[in-house]
Amino acid sequence: MSRYLSPTRSALVPYTPGEQPRERKYIKLNTNESPFPPSEKAIAAATEAVLRLNLYSDPTCKALTEAIATLYGVDPTQVICTNGSDEVLDFAFQAFCDADTPAVFPDITYGFYPVFAARNNVPYETIPLKDDFTIDIKNYLGIDKTIFIANPNAPTGIALKVSEIEEIVSSNPDTVVVIDEAYVDFGAESCVKLTGKYDNLLVTQTFSKSRSMAGARLGFGIGNSKLIADLHTIRNSTNPYNVNSMTMAAGVGVLADEEYTRKNCLTVMDNRDYTAAELQKRGFEMTNSYANFLFAKHPSLDGGKLYEKLKEMGILVRHFTAPRISDYNRITVGTQAEMDALIQAIDKILMEGCVKIQ
Amino acid sequence: MSRYLSPTRSALVPYTPGEQPRERKYIKLNTNESPFPPSEKAIAAATEAVLRLNLYSDPTCKALTEAIATLYGVDPTQVICTNGSDEVLDFAFQAFCDADTPAVFPDITYGFYPVFAARNNVPYETIPLKDDFTIDIKNYLGIDKTIFIANPNAPTGIALKVSEIEEIVSSNPDTVVVIDEAYVDFGAESCVKLTGKYDNLLVTQTFSKSRSMAGARLGFGIGNSKLIADLHTIRNSTNPYNVNSMTMAAGVGVLADEEYTRKNCLTVMDNRDYTAAELQKRGFEMTNSYANFLFAKHPSLDGGKLYEKLKEMGILVRHFTAPRISDYNRITVGTQAEMDALIQAIDKILMEGCVKIQ
Repeated sequence: MSRYLSPTRSALVPYTPGEQPRERKYIKLNTNESPFPPSEKAIAAATEAVLRLNLYSDPTCKALTEAIATLYGVDPTQVICTNGSDEVLDFAFQAFCDADTPAVFPDITYGFYPVFAARNNVPYETIPLKDDFTIDIKNYLGIDKTIFIANPNAPTGIALKVSEIEEIVSSNPDTVVVIDEAYVDFGAESCVKLTGKYDNLLVTQTFSKSRSMAGARLGFGIGNSKLIADLHTIRNSTNPYNVNSMTMAAGVGVLADEEYTRKNCLTVMDNRDYTAAELQKRGFEMTNSYANFLFAKHPSLDGGKLYEKLKEMGILVRHFTAPRISDYNRITVGTQAEMDALIQAIDKILMEGCVKIQ
Repeated sequence: MSRYLSPTRSALVPYTPGEQPRERKYIKLNTNESPFPPSEKAIAAATEAVLRLNLYSDPTCKALTEAIATLYGVDPTQVICTNGSDEVLDFAFQAFCDADTPAVFPDITYGFYPVFAARNNVPYETIPLKDDFTIDIKNYLGIDKTIFIANPNAPTGIALKVSEIEEIVSSNPDTVVVIDEAYVDFGAESCVKLTGKYDNLLVTQTFSKSRSMAGARLGFGIGNSKLIADLHTIRNSTNPYNVNSMTMAAGVGVLADEEYTRKNCLTVMDNRDYTAAELQKRGFEMTNSYANFLFAKHPSLDGGKLYEKLKEMGILVRHFTAPRISDYNRITVGTQAEMDALIQAIDKILMEGCVKIQ
């Protein structure tokens, strides 16, 4: 820290993204990337956009915004595109939270929420998940605070039903409810359809997972037009050219190839079910994940040690040290071959008897 | 505005970027883009990166950071890469300004500074330029505030000498001085070399202008390692994957083609001198621009009307309505052919006698 950093920032603890090691080739099951290449249509469109990089990208993001609006059956004024969905979440903290309207989210969820709150000088409260890691929606009814819920939740993969989300949204008419659907495409139900009915609902999604575009950085928000206009005010006061022209083109491309996306999602879901069954046979316990990852622990394996062992063997998974979840690892669902490699590695570890440290 | 927008944001007036019309083909001389295509090496690298978009970009931006560090003769810990230089400027407002340390900048300069200040709830003061639009450095000596100076300044193109900047930096040892060198590659002198000597100097640059990459969104900051570490804290608390992988690759590519960049800059400077001389012959008055634009007015032409007339004729320039500069237009320097088209259009307008409205 330099002596110039504002005291308002000095306590800031940044978010820690999953490891992205460059020195060795791993089977990467740690950051919930898609194991499938980007759509051919995304590749073609981005490749063509590269030739015109000397010109600024469209600050209104028109073509992409319209493509998203068409796919989700909403008006373009209900859509905002951002540099990853982290950016639209950050904008929501800036627009809809302040000292009088704190943010609220589960104690176990996407680890960036408390960081966004802290950086934006917004107070926040966390509500503990139940012991089985499910959300008790009663805790969120009529609380009059800005609510952030990842659905499916991370890193558990557990999903709320749309009817449950509607209860939360309708019971907090004077504050915004943000539903972060980064993982919605792997079997959960989107609540985008509720945005026409409730003016206090913001749904965020990403092209990083289901659309094989993590490296492109593209997220979006859908909500009531006025809510989205507020987010555009923040965007245009931050970085009006927030989405670069290659990403914009790739986004339009992949949306023209929805069949490819859906096929990949189904494959991931199949591989998830397969892997869950194999892990269960070996004594693992898991949450009921609707995401492109499994959240698993083994009664005789220490979570941190399993992570370390797998890393030694060339397989990266994600381990969190937070108290209630340190026994677990979050394992991205990859290709069938990657899942088989994981299971073989786990068999080896179990045979070696890497005993849990109490 | 929705009824959910925080009152802390309700007075926010976003930055207005230059027009990016899609409905008609203009000669675009309004957003200071490069008239030259991106480097072949940038194109090749980005095209290759497109194939791996399913994987996240490197959050440490290692290869690009090292390439920038090598070019500018600094350590990689002295470099931060961002989603356009707007982002590093925004981070600087967040890191180095607060209620006790207001921001200071000229009254006529890059229009985003007051917006960054407002969005980050940072107080700011402006110091008037002299009547000839030059900066009186005496106003910036020992003022103990966080100083933002665009050098060359926008939209005037007038540059301070490095020795003058050093006076400002050395006289404010307890606050940060940010020198925004977006336009430095067109004949002004960079003060990157001072970053080894002063721990309170942050220099920002962009790949948008001289490196033909406006659409890729790539900026960077160079400063003392501790200062840069502070900016990384903000970055990692905002968007650790702020630079996408295509842009990162294109950035490395263009830096391996420095000869191309320098050749283009020289061409722009030649075209600038040519255009300035032609405009002077026609009675225009101009600032002494060291940037890739001219800032010009004509005693018998109203600034706003000239902008409108040129737009009707298919040529876009940038007109600002702020009091002291509303007589002027900022004209991006393009190719020789574009400059000739501009001059022909102006000749036509002058012949038609579009008289200045008093």
